Amino acid sequence: MIIKTEYLKIKTKKRKDIVHLTDSVEEFLKRTGIIEGFILVSSMHITSGIVINDYEEGLWEDIYKWLEDLAPEKSDYKHHRTGETNGDAHLKRILVNHQVIVPITDGKLDLGRWEKIFYFEFDGQREKRIILKAFGE
Amino acid sequence: MIIKTEYLKIKTKKRKDIVHLTDSVEEFLKRTGIIEGFILVSSMHITSGIVINDYEEGLWEDIYKWLEDLAPEKSDYKHHRTGETNGDAHLKRILVNHQVIVPITDGKLDLGRWEKIFYFEFDGQREKRIILKAFGE
Amino acid sequence: MIIKTEYLKIKTKKRKDIVHLTDSVEEFLKRTGIIEGFILVSSMHITSGIVINDYEEGLWEDIYKWLEDLAPEKSDYKHHRTGETNGDAHLKRILVNHQVIVPITDGKLDLGRWEKIFYFEFDGQREKRIILKAFGE
Repeated sequence: MIIKTEYLKIKTKKRKDIVHLTDSVEEFLKRTGIIEGFILVSSMHITSGIVINDYEEGLWEDIYKWLEDLAPEKSDYKHHRTGETNGDAHLKRILVNHQVIVPITDGKLDLGRWEKIFYFEFDGQREKRIILKAFGE
Repeated sequence: MIIKTEYLKIKTKKRKDIVHLTDSVEEFLKRTGIIEGFILVSSMHITSGIVINDYEEGLWEDIYKWLEDLAPEKSDYKHHRTGETNGDAHLKRILVNHQVIVPITDGKLDLGRWEKIFYFEFDGQREKRIILKAFGE
Repeated sequence: MIIKTEYLKIKTKKRKDIVHLTDSVEEFLKRTGIIEGFILVSSMHITSGIVINDYEEGLWEDIYKWLEDLAPEKSDYKHHRTGETNGDAHLKRILVNHQVIVPITDGKLDLGRWEKIFYFEFDGQREKRIILKAFGE
């Protein structure tokens, strides 16, 4: 069994931002040499997540607006008694989930026609890490 | 290590519908011959998801009503500028998540007493694919 | 390939409660002897979930309040026609998700600096099971 690990480092310009990861995950796959297996893509920060959805900018706006409606920025989170100001970002990470498993078949990411992998940042402007960990044969 | 892949094809009669998958996943497990391992069950379409929850029709109605409250059908999603009409379906897929990992122990799906696997369709009436990918020994 | 399975048993004192699992998962990891691999942590009950987030009590209060806002306890869930009273707990489990995959690198849980693993109970006061299933080398 092959098992390989790499870490992506991301620093977004905006506090809330989206980064397309599919190409980075494909390049990692090539470096692993795996033909059949899986890749875990998982945010290592508790205020960002990983989502597989559409590469369509209008939808990304819809998603951020929707997340803001369901888990709004506001001052009175109890978490803010620690001095933090990112209570909403923790909730958004829970809602979108923080990881995906991508299947590898015939040496390729086995995604549907429209499935693309994204990093969703909710409290950025500093360096964050994503673990890519593959296993297979 | 055994690694096996199959694809389920599903076309629901209704645009929003639920399909029970546990039996299909069990039949796939038997074909793999795996005794100890895991099965990834993942929707390959960005407007449907996979959920493990109760086999109880009243609850399914509750879930769809709840998803409609939290991510409603409406006309003014920015995604709809592309000509699509399924903005809500993308959001619902994010909320319920699009994949599960099912453990295999002693040759059986190692699920809790009430855990059943479901496909949640939010924009159906056309053929969709679910990947089943198992690994183990 | 090493594959090992254990089950954690949890009975919370309160109906809705949170249990920190990171130490239990680390102890399980040591028993497996795995240096490179993964651990699935998955609730086997359909009214509880697994979340990786911050070890901060104020945030936990925020999360429970937020979940109550988005998936409230109420009497008129259709699921309650079965005699159950836990419709909200099923919805909360869907929202937070019921499982995580934890990567193992160099014999340790490969989590971010602030990532801790939690069990979120939404209908407790009776014994529940969590499966820990590891694989790797």
